[in-house]
Amino acid sequence: MKTQRKLLNSAERCVDEALSGMVRASAGLSLLKGHRVLLRSDLHSLQGRVALLSGGGSGHEPAHAGYIGSGMLSAAVAGGVFASPPPASILAAILCLHNAGASGVLLIVKNYTGDRLNFGLAAEQARNHGVAVDMVIVADDCAFNQPSKAGRRGLCGTVFAHKLAGALAEEGCSLDQIVTKMTEVLKGIGTLGVSLSPCSVPGCLPSFELPPGDMELGLGERRTGRGRGGRDTMGLASADEVVKTMIDHMTNPDSQSHLPLKSGDNVVVCVNNLGALSCLEMAVVTRAAINCLGMVRGVVVARVMSGSFMTSLEMAGVSLTLMKADQDVLRLFDAKTSAPAWPNLSSVCVSGRDYTTDPPAMASHVSPLSPVMRKALENVCSTLLQQQEELNSLDRAAGDGDCGNTHAQAAKAIQEWLQSHVVPGCPGQLLSVLAGLVQEKMGGSSGALYSLFLTAAAGHVTEGQSNATAWARALHAGTQAMRRYGGADPGDRTMLDALCPAVDELMKLTTSPPGGEMAVLQAAVQKAASGAESTRDLIARAGRASYIAAERVTLPDPGAVAVAAIFRAVLQALEGRQ
Amino acid sequence: MKTQRKLLNSAERCVDEALSGMVRASAGLSLLKGHRVLLRSDLHSLQGRVALLSGGGSGHEPAHAGYIGSGMLSAAVAGGVFASPPPASILAAILCLHNAGASGVLLIVKNYTGDRLNFGLAAEQARNHGVAVDMVIVADDCAFNQPSKAGRRGLCGTVFAHKLAGALAEEGCSLDQIVTKMTEVLKGIGTLGVSLSPCSVPGCLPSFELPPGDMELGLGERRTGRGRGGRDTMGLASADEVVKTMIDHMTNPDSQSHLPLKSGDNVVVCVNNLGALSCLEMAVVTRAAINCLGMVRGVVVARVMSGSFMTSLEMAGVSLTLMKADQDVLRLFDAKTSAPAWPNLSSVCVSGRDYTTDPPAMASHVSPLSPVMRKALENVCSTLLQQQEELNSLDRAAGDGDCGNTHAQAAKAIQEWLQSHVVPGCPGQLLSVLAGLVQEKMGGSSGALYSLFLTAAAGHVTEGQSNATAWARALHAGTQAMRRYGGADPGDRTMLDALCPAVDELMKLTTSPPGGEMAVLQAAVQKAASGAESTRDLIARAGRASYIAAERVTLPDPGAVAVAAIFRAVLQALEGRQ
Repeated sequence: MKTQRKLLNSAERCVDEALSGMVRASAGLSLLKGHRVLLRSDLHSLQGRVALLSGGGSGHEPAHAGYIGSGMLSAAVAGGVFASPPPASILAAILCLHNAGASGVLLIVKNYTGDRLNFGLAAEQARNHGVAVDMVIVADDCAFNQPSKAGRRGLCGTVFAHKLAGALAEEGCSLDQIVTKMTEVLKGIGTLGVSLSPCSVPGCLPSFELPPGDMELGLGERRTGRGRGGRDTMGLASADEVVKTMIDHMTNPDSQSHLPLKSGDNVVVCVNNLGALSCLEMAVVTRAAINCLGMVRGVVVARVMSGSFMTSLEMAGVSLTLMKADQDVLRLFDAKTSAPAWPNLSSVCVSGRDYTTDPPAMASHVSPLSPVMRKALENVCSTLLQQQEELNSLDRAAGDGDCGNTHAQAAKAIQEWLQSHVVPGCPGQLLSVLAGLVQEKMGGSSGALYSLFLTAAAGHVTEGQSNATAWARALHAGTQAMRRYGGADPGDRTMLDALCPAVDELMKLTTSPPGGEMAVLQAAVQKAASGAESTRDLIARAGRASYIAAERVTLPDPGAVAVAAIFRAVLQALEGRQ
Repeated sequence: MKTQRKLLNSAERCVDEALSGMVRASAGLSLLKGHRVLLRSDLHSLQGRVALLSGGGSGHEPAHAGYIGSGMLSAAVAGGVFASPPPASILAAILCLHNAGASGVLLIVKNYTGDRLNFGLAAEQARNHGVAVDMVIVADDCAFNQPSKAGRRGLCGTVFAHKLAGALAEEGCSLDQIVTKMTEVLKGIGTLGVSLSPCSVPGCLPSFELPPGDMELGLGERRTGRGRGGRDTMGLASADEVVKTMIDHMTNPDSQSHLPLKSGDNVVVCVNNLGALSCLEMAVVTRAAINCLGMVRGVVVARVMSGSFMTSLEMAGVSLTLMKADQDVLRLFDAKTSAPAWPNLSSVCVSGRDYTTDPPAMASHVSPLSPVMRKALENVCSTLLQQQEELNSLDRAAGDGDCGNTHAQAAKAIQEWLQSHVVPGCPGQLLSVLAGLVQEKMGGSSGALYSLFLTAAAGHVTEGQSNATAWARALHAGTQAMRRYGGADPGDRTMLDALCPAVDELMKLTTSPPGGEMAVLQAAVQKAASGAESTRDLIARAGRASYIAAERVTLPDPGAVAVAAIFRAVLQALEGRQ
C-alpha cells in the first residue's frame, strides 16, 4: 500500500481550498469569514422562514455545501476530512441565519457520535442565545442486521432530507411542522453501499484493503476507526447480481435496519457514485436498480437520480438510497431548487413509461440495371480480386498489409449482391446501395471514405440526368466529400493522389462539346495511373501510413493503386472490352 | 498491469446497458429501437426548429446523451467504447429528427477521423433523402504545439457547443445562422487535460502506464491507438502548479493550437472530471483555475462549471476548457435547458463578486464571581489533577488510557482562565464559558459531552434565579442533553451511571422544603460514588469501551469515577472544607 497521489496543494489546506473553490464557482454561495461555513448569498430571503443547516466531515463533496440554495439548505458547516465540524462554527452559522431573520433553524445531522454531539452542543448554545432551533437525525444505513448502540449511520439519504425539508421551508412551514414531517419521512429512507476499492484521507494510507476480486457491501460513505466497518465482503459479481444482493439486504425483514418495501410501493431511487466509479458503470448500475425494483419486485420507481451526491473521496463504489414516496413527498422532491449540486430531473414517473421510439421507415423502389453498368461493376470487382495480393504487398510496406483484403471484401459483397438482388437502374439509387454495402462489408476508414464518395456522388446522377456531364459532376462531388470529411489533400500519399487528377480530367466533360467523351475518359484513366505512380515519392501525411518513417516507403500507395485499377476497369467495360 | 475490476455485467453489453440506464432514468429521453441512439421524448417540439445531433464513442458519459433536452441536443448517437458510431445509426437519427418536422439538422462532431467520416457519410446520405443537414466540427484541443494533419481533437469544449447551439435552435435560428455563429464561437474555445492515472476499456488492459509520481499533460478524453498520445509527462506537482502549467500552455502564442487570451477578456470555464478524481480535488482545482485566470492573468471569469461533463471512463484526471464569452455568448450559456447532465448554474459573474459574509458578533457582559463558586471550581480542578494517574490507569483496561489526561487538560485550562480573566458571576454565563473552554481544551467525545452538559444547564441558572431548585433543574437539563445527543443510557457503563442517580437525588430539591439542601447534596454525592462503583459489573454498550470484550473489564468506568470525584469536590467547597 502506498499513499494515493492526489491533485491537491497540501493535505492541511485541502478542505479550506475546496470550500474556496466551491464558493468562488457558485454565485449563490458565500463563505462565513473565519469558519468553514458556506451560506446562501441571498440570506435576506430567509426572512420569516425556517432556515436549514447541515454539514459534517469533508471528503463527501458535493455534500453538503452543494445543496445550499433556494429550496434546499440555507448553510452548511464542514469539518476536516471525515471529521465532525467544531461546535463554534456550527453556532456561528446558526446565529448568522437567526440574525438574517429566520423564524427558526433546523439542523439536519447525520447519525455519527461526533456530529450529534457537536451539532447538539451548538444547538444548546443557540437556545441560550434565544434562537428557535431543532434537529433531525438522519440514520438511513441498512448495512447492519443488528445496529450497535450508536445506531444506523447517516448516509446519502441525507440528500433527500435536505431536499424535502428545503421544499417545506420554502413553502413557509413552521419549524415544528418540518420536524414532524421529516421524522415521518426519514423512516421510509434506506441506503446501502458497495465498494470496489478503498479511499485514502489526504496524506494518509488507504483506509482499508480489499483483496483483488473482492468487493465490500455495506460500506457507506466512510469507514474510519473501529466500529465503523461494513457488513460483508463478497466476490466480485456482475452489476445485476450486486444490485440484487443490495436490494435484497436492504429490504430483508430479518434485518433490524431494513426498509419495509412491498410490491406496489412508490419509491424515489438515488444511485450515488462514492467517488471513482465511471459514469458508464453508473449508468449500468442505474439500469440494474430500475430493473430489479420495477420488473422483479413490482415496485413503482417514481424518480431516479444518478450521479455523485455524497462521495467518499476517490472510493470506487456506489450506494443505493430508496425513499418511499407518496404524492406529497413527490411534490416536495420535484420542487425547484437553485442548489448547484442538485441535478436537472424530470418529474415524470420512471416506471411504466414507454421509452422507445420506432426507427424511421426507409422506403425504396427499384428499376432494373442497364447492361453496361452491370458490366462496369463486374469488371471493377474482378479487377480488385485479381489485385488482392499486389495491394496487400504494397500495404505491408507502410500499413497493416490488408489493403487488398479490404478491397476484396467489398468486391465479393458487390458480386454477391449483383447475383441475389434486384439491382436498381437509377444511377443515384445504385450508388447509394453500393455506399451502404461498402460501408458495411469493407469497414474501417477505407470503407467510410468510399462510402462517402459514393453517397455524395449519388445525389448528382438520377434516372433523368445521367449523361457524361452528370457523371463527371457526381464524381467531383464524391471527391470533394472525401476531402472534406477525411481531412486529406492531394500530395498526402492517399487514394486522392490518383482520384483527384482523374476527376479533374473528367470535369472537362462539363464544358467540352459532345462526342469526345471516350477520349476524356481514357485521359482520366491515364491521370489516375500516373497519379498512383507518383505516390512513390510522397511522404505520407494522412491515413495509417503517416505513422511510418518516410525512409521506409518506396512503393506506391496501395489505395491510390486501387483507385487507378477501378478507373481502368470501368473504362474497359465502357469500351466493350473484357 | 491487470484488468481493472468494474461494476458491469459484460464488456460486450455495457454500452447498450448504459444507454438503457440513462434512458430509463430520464423521462425526457427515448431510445430509437435497433440503434444506439437516444432522442428527446418530446420530438414534436422540434416542429419548425433546427434539430441538433451529436455523439461519438462511449466511455465519455454523460456525453453525449446527458445533454439531450430542450435548449440542448435533440438526439445523440453512441458508438462502442472509444469507437465512432456507425453511419446507419447516425442516418436513422437524422431521419427521425427530420420526420418529426425539424426544419434542418445540425451535426455537432468531435474532430476524430472516424467521427468525421461516419457523420459525414450519414450527412451525405441524409441530403440524398432531402434533409437539410449541416455539420460543425469541434477541435478544441490545445495540447499540441504543432497539430498533425488530423488536426486538434474534439474534447470537452463540445459540451459548450451543445449548449450554445441548443440555445440558438431554441430561439428559432435557422440552420445557416447557427452554423455561422458556432463557427465563430468555436474559434474561442480551448481545452487541455491532465491525467494522474490511465483508464481501461472494459475487458482490456489499461490504455497506458504512468510511472508513479508522474502525470500526463494534454491527454484529453481518449488516448487509444497510435497518434493520439498526449503532449508531455511531468512530475507530480501541486494543484496550483498543474493548473498554472495548463493555462500557460493553453494560451502560449508559440503553440499553433493555443487560445489567444489577454487581460480583460471574459471567459466561461469548465473544470471537467475525467472520471475518478475526487470531488474534493475537483473543488481545489476549480479554486486554482479561478485564481490563476482572475488574479494572476487579469481575465474576467464570467461563469464556472465544475463536475463530470465529458469523462474518460475511470481516468483520474481533469481537463480545463476556456471559452471566450461576450454578452451574446453568456446569454446563450445562461439559457434554460432540461438536459439531465447540465448543472444548476447561477448566472452571476464569478469575478469581482464579494463571496464572504461577516460572522455574527458575540456580545458578552461580565459581573464578578462569588467566592464559593470560585472555591468549588478550584476544588474540582485540583481533584481532577490529583486523580489523573488513577483515571488513566482505569482507562487502560478498556480504552486509550488517557481519560485522566483529558480531564487534567480541562482542569488546567480552567485554572489558567480563573487566574487570567474576569470570571462572570452570573451562573449561566459561567457555565457557558466553561462549556467553551472544555470543548476547546478537553477535545474528543468527553469534551463534547461535558460541554453539552454545561451548555444545556446554563439556560436554567441566571443571576436572578440561582437557588438550589434552579441548580437542580439545570443539572437535570444538562444530563438530559447528554443522554439525548450522546445516545447512551444509564447501565451502558458510562459517566451517566454516576451522574444520573446523583441528579435524580438532587431533583428532590425542587419539591422538598428549604433547609435540607446540604443533606440532599451529601446524599447525591453518595449516589454518584456508588453509581461509579456499580460500573464494575456492567458491560460497555456505548463509548470506546464498547469495542472491548466484556470479560476484560473488571474495574469501574473512569468517566463515572471522574463524575463522582467532581461531585465530591463541589460538596467539599460548599461545606467549607479544603
